Amino acid sequence: MKKIAIIGSTGSIGTQTLDVVQQHPEQFSVEGLAAGSNVDLFVQQVNRFRPKRASIGTKQLAERVRPLIPADVELSYGDEGLIEVAAGTEADTVITAVVGSAGLPATLAAISEGKTVALANKETLVTAGHLVMALAKEKGVSILPVDSEHSAIFQCLNGENMGDVAGITLTASGGSFRDYTRDQLVDVTVEDALKHPNWSMGAKVTIDSATMVNKGLEVIEAHWLFGLEFERIGVLLHPESIVHSFVEYRDGSIIAQLGTPDMRVPIQYALSYPQRWTSASQRLSLAEVGKLHFREMSFERFPCLRLAFECGKIGGTAPTVFNAANEVAVARFLNRDISFLKIEYLIETVLSRHVALADPSLEAIKDADQWAREVAESL
Amino acid sequence: MKKIAIIGSTGSIGTQTLDVVQQHPEQFSVEGLAAGSNVDLFVQQVNRFRPKRASIGTKQLAERVRPLIPADVELSYGDEGLIEVAAGTEADTVITAVVGSAGLPATLAAISEGKTVALANKETLVTAGHLVMALAKEKGVSILPVDSEHSAIFQCLNGENMGDVAGITLTASGGSFRDYTRDQLVDVTVEDALKHPNWSMGAKVTIDSATMVNKGLEVIEAHWLFGLEFERIGVLLHPESIVHSFVEYRDGSIIAQLGTPDMRVPIQYALSYPQRWTSASQRLSLAEVGKLHFREMSFERFPCLRLAFECGKIGGTAPTVFNAANEVAVARFLNRDISFLKIEYLIETVLSRHVALADPSLEAIKDADQWAREVAESL
Repeated sequence: MKKIAIIGSTGSIGTQTLDVVQQHPEQFSVEGLAAGSNVDLFVQQVNRFRPKRASIGTKQLAERVRPLIPADVELSYGDEGLIEVAAGTEADTVITAVVGSAGLPATLAAISEGKTVALANKETLVTAGHLVMALAKEKGVSILPVDSEHSAIFQCLNGENMGDVAGITLTASGGSFRDYTRDQLVDVTVEDALKHPNWSMGAKVTIDSATMVNKGLEVIEAHWLFGLEFERIGVLLHPESIVHSFVEYRDGSIIAQLGTPDMRVPIQYALSYPQRWTSASQRLSLAEVGKLHFREMSFERFPCLRLAFECGKIGGTAPTVFNAANEVAVARFLNRDISFLKIEYLIETVLSRHVALADPSLEAIKDADQWAREVAESL
Repeated sequence: MKKIAIIGSTGSIGTQTLDVVQQHPEQFSVEGLAAGSNVDLFVQQVNRFRPKRASIGTKQLAERVRPLIPADVELSYGDEGLIEVAAGTEADTVITAVVGSAGLPATLAAISEGKTVALANKETLVTAGHLVMALAKEKGVSILPVDSEHSAIFQCLNGENMGDVAGITLTASGGSFRDYTRDQLVDVTVEDALKHPNWSMGAKVTIDSATMVNKGLEVIEAHWLFGLEFERIGVLLHPESIVHSFVEYRDGSIIAQLGTPDMRVPIQYALSYPQRWTSASQRLSLAEVGKLHFREMSFERFPCLRLAFECGKIGGTAPTVFNAANEVAVARFLNRDISFLKIEYLIETVLSRHVALADPSLEAIKDADQWAREVAESL
């Protein structure tokens, strides 16, 4: 039986993780759950899965939650509570599904305690890949990908030697505006942007998918997860999101992972690895799909992806600034404060003003993050 | 360094195996070469690769060859010579690339001597899968697939548990007449049939590809190689021959192997396994390919595939009869003795007259083979 804790349990990945738990109740014991502000769902989850520890976003929310959950559940709140759920339970695996920079300290805490991390929080590796992977190595801890693209790569590396890998390619659906020209992007609305063609995801990641920032963050993550230089990481447009990603080996052989777009499959794989369990996900019929399309990725059309590669190669605090500027820009776009194209403008402008610091400490990462947010707010 | 012997060195697979050897000369020592009737190429190969043992089809051909090769090469001929090259050298791996039923005794001899078999001879497993796999198990010998489809499946099983496999799917280009209706097949010629759209192959296998007998034999092979019941083996039409085959796991995940149509890649993999080496094969660019197509396979359009599944499930001598009847039918078609559609008629008719014998000995297999050939010749 796998003992798990989920930080970010009420979000898209968190709820789907609990779907997987419900499909395989005999495989799991839920030791901890942490959420942000969705009190109703959080209360339901705590009552249903009976974790020993739980945590919610603020003290005020915790006071609302307390009378609604069993008395023997230890309840905490805020960043401290997040860390307690990540590191302070008997869980052997922690699913880090919280969105944004808040995931980093909790993930590091879990690794410090020797817990396997099923990583769904992109920012962790993007901002602090050097610290996270070094700590994981030191503690002998596995970082297992949850994201469909990284899970695909991980699956395609099964039983192979990293020395035989020529390169990896992440596929990208192209997001809501895949077939729009740059000119057509000028007037797009928040509603337009939130219509993702294939995946059911949160608002932030749906916008990141349309700007290709999401893929850029995945490229930087892949660099850390698989220890590959950026020259060996490619991105390919694949509208159907059926081929989730692939590995090319030096003999010319390509191993790809395919499936219907259902996040529960990679989530479950991170939890069942190295085994596979049955799943309720819809089976892929390639005969029914009929055709798969692939197109070269364009850095001109998707400048945020170019910026991500550039930041990744610079390293240090550059990816943190990229990520923080994007978080602010997306929030401002979702608040209808700026236009869609201003997202990339903000990111590029903030980056142009940043002098990257190499091998930054957590403190330096936090400072760079803070600085980037302030500049991005001011533009 | 890998010590190898090749039986069938002048055929399509044999020559491409020697291409691989030439690309990685430091990896190989060629201990034995056996060929049928292509004296000129055989003499070239023996002089170039300097095996300790060599064998050619007949005594007469051996007498022609003798003065043309180094005196220290032990030369033999015929079925006996084939077995000597397969089993009587210091090779640790034998590539069984000879076409037709002749490959079986040589393959069994190699396994008996504890040699790893890189299997390119379809008939070996089709006619005697029960004997070959049992002997391989007894001797602790690996049977590594060379065929692109089986190599794909083998690669997609890397690092996985067979218990997690839901099923495998072999892709089929559809052969020269993929888009012909049954009516359009009535008048097709040998020349039409020999134009295979994707792969450069021998005449026999090109015809087998057009009738789908080839895929049927591969299905039966896959059954033995991977120990899967026929219900878990599927065939999918995929005109581009880019996805070489795939495995579906019980979590809904599909792992596929892709590449340009170049037999040297699977041949090399059988020789480099579990490693991979660089290869001169053209790299696959999915962006250049642009589209991949998949279509449901039809047993009505390709009745030989239905017959193969039926024979496979019946087992015993049924696949031997299927294969022998087909060999005769294809030879008669290539000799312009019968029409294309008569190939399937011959196979079905011979099968309808056969009472399959379960768990046959080599002798019984030989008898069934002989009987089927006689009936197929007489129809």
